[in-house]
Amino acid sequence: MPEIRWDIITEERVIIATERSRRPHDFQSADSPAAPTPEYVPNCPFCVGNESMTPPEVDAYREAGTAPDTPGWRVRVVPNKFPALAPDGNLHPREQGIYMLADGVGVHEVIIETPKHNETPPRAAPEQWRLVIQMYGRRLQRLASDERLKTVLIFRNEGKTAGASLEHPHSQLVGLTFTPPLVQRHIEGVQRYYSRHGKHPFEAIIAHELREGVRVVRQTEHFMLYAPFAARAPYELAILPLSPIARLEQMDEATLAEFADLLQDALKRLDALLKNPPYNYMLFNAPSGYEAEFWLHLRIAPRLSIDAGFELGSGVGINITAPEDAAQYLREVAIEPS
Amino acid sequence: MPEIRWDIITEERVIIATERSRRPHDFQSADSPAAPTPEYVPNCPFCVGNESMTPPEVDAYREAGTAPDTPGWRVRVVPNKFPALAPDGNLHPREQGIYMLADGVGVHEVIIETPKHNETPPRAAPEQWRLVIQMYGRRLQRLASDERLKTVLIFRNEGKTAGASLEHPHSQLVGLTFTPPLVQRHIEGVQRYYSRHGKHPFEAIIAHELREGVRVVRQTEHFMLYAPFAARAPYELAILPLSPIARLEQMDEATLAEFADLLQDALKRLDALLKNPPYNYMLFNAPSGYEAEFWLHLRIAPRLSIDAGFELGSGVGINITAPEDAAQYLREVAIEPS
Repeated sequence: MPEIRWDIITEERVIIATERSRRPHDFQSADSPAAPTPEYVPNCPFCVGNESMTPPEVDAYREAGTAPDTPGWRVRVVPNKFPALAPDGNLHPREQGIYMLADGVGVHEVIIETPKHNETPPRAAPEQWRLVIQMYGRRLQRLASDERLKTVLIFRNEGKTAGASLEHPHSQLVGLTFTPPLVQRHIEGVQRYYSRHGKHPFEAIIAHELREGVRVVRQTEHFMLYAPFAARAPYELAILPLSPIARLEQMDEATLAEFADLLQDALKRLDALLKNPPYNYMLFNAPSGYEAEFWLHLRIAPRLSIDAGFELGSGVGINITAPEDAAQYLREVAIEPS
Repeated sequence: MPEIRWDIITEERVIIATERSRRPHDFQSADSPAAPTPEYVPNCPFCVGNESMTPPEVDAYREAGTAPDTPGWRVRVVPNKFPALAPDGNLHPREQGIYMLADGVGVHEVIIETPKHNETPPRAAPEQWRLVIQMYGRRLQRLASDERLKTVLIFRNEGKTAGASLEHPHSQLVGLTFTPPLVQRHIEGVQRYYSRHGKHPFEAIIAHELREGVRVVRQTEHFMLYAPFAARAPYELAILPLSPIARLEQMDEATLAEFADLLQDALKRLDALLKNPPYNYMLFNAPSGYEAEFWLHLRIAPRLSIDAGFELGSGVGINITAPEDAAQYLREVAIEPS
């Protein structure tokens, strides 16, 4: 019997229909090519030595004495060459007949995670991967001073099926002048839950999940990696902080490293179980003005199934893998510890 | 300069960023295989003669004197062999710790559009395609008597990229015991617009678009085919009725045929311009209880770009083709008239 499950925060429904369920290896497809192998690819704009192929860098961790846009960097941030939003323009909406529009103003950056073309997150040295997450925090900190930006979303697309157009390991950052609808609905859901239950829904989730255990993949000192009860898609995961943290840039160095290691652990588990699956992850940092009530969190969405007409027309996900099964497989899969 | 455009009904934003825009033929990809050629495929469960490969039919248009689940049908409806929802169960939500869930009850049917494997909508005889739409209306009529169902969504998935798992031309129908969030937000947006402007937003859209012309692809006696101002993705189209029609099954035969012909015309244009593109379309019929305020409409979503981390994390679409350009290409493309 399929189940309808309610998301505890948004109160939206998902359908968990496991009759079509497949075991993890059945999800491996032609869309999951082998991970890239060469360390350097001559025409890759993100490979070391090819710095002139990108717009000038806006930030980097680099060896002392090396110049911007030359080798010597460990993590490098550049504006997106084909930005979805422009850095300047008129923020005021204007009318066009019955419609409303505005200049598309915002920030669109690429965080090049490593000089090496084949140093994917599961293969990266822990120190390298921590630098990536540290750079996330540094960019968020810098952009917090741009008062036009209400929300900064950091995300990662892995694999063509997940929308990645370049293979070299990279994340992206988009700064928006507004709070987008999914974040807005999350905030409204948190407020609704708070007013009914007197606590943040993550508090309830953490207490319940750690007691039950069935959907937890890993717990560390400050974080929990788990498969949400109302996961929209197979093997969807989330990382929650065990106590309130509004923004990544507020973490101390040790907590940030712990977060980076847990994220890398999650990606290693997915990689080991599903063989280089396409996925997206999204880091939700408190939008400006919501620091008091927002707990940061990260959602990993493997792209193992395709949203079709039903999902596009209803907004309801159909998940053919029970989150409890996904969590068990991911708990038990063997990975090399970081 | 990218633009932010507001959807006039939901008031959600999309980004129109045409700097990465491509001409129509650049969208043609390996995901757009040639249309199927053989009229009969031995192991296809939807081909004529293979009726025993599906669950028993629940409806069909067939030659007088032919028995169910035998040849002689022109359009055939069967339960989905792997349904997302079960026909019976307990509708009452129950608690599971802090969460809420219910049995996944609903209807999931497949409408096999033709006995011929290769009779895709652009190639179908107009009479055949009208029968398909007539069957949509008949199923909606029949299911309207099931008082458990609040919303019945009919949709079509074309191509693997759009979630189709079988090649033989077919549509699907899902009956839900609730109003799903996208439909709910549409209804709320219509109500909000009505209370502010004293009319249905479609009235405003139709008057404005027919006057401007730039986003209209075709107008018929009772319908308009156009590219919405805030289209979320390249070549997205919608069909609106020019005056209120709540439900497909309320149309008289001539109006239904006109609607079917216009939908087929739209699919022919997309096929001619973009060479068998993957797409979904979704038919939105008034959910039960909303017949007074709901105008039916149909949305066609070609799957030419992939929602990646930004879209999944924000709910904001990035459309690299201006709807005005899409409409012009689609107006001008040569197709064989039905």
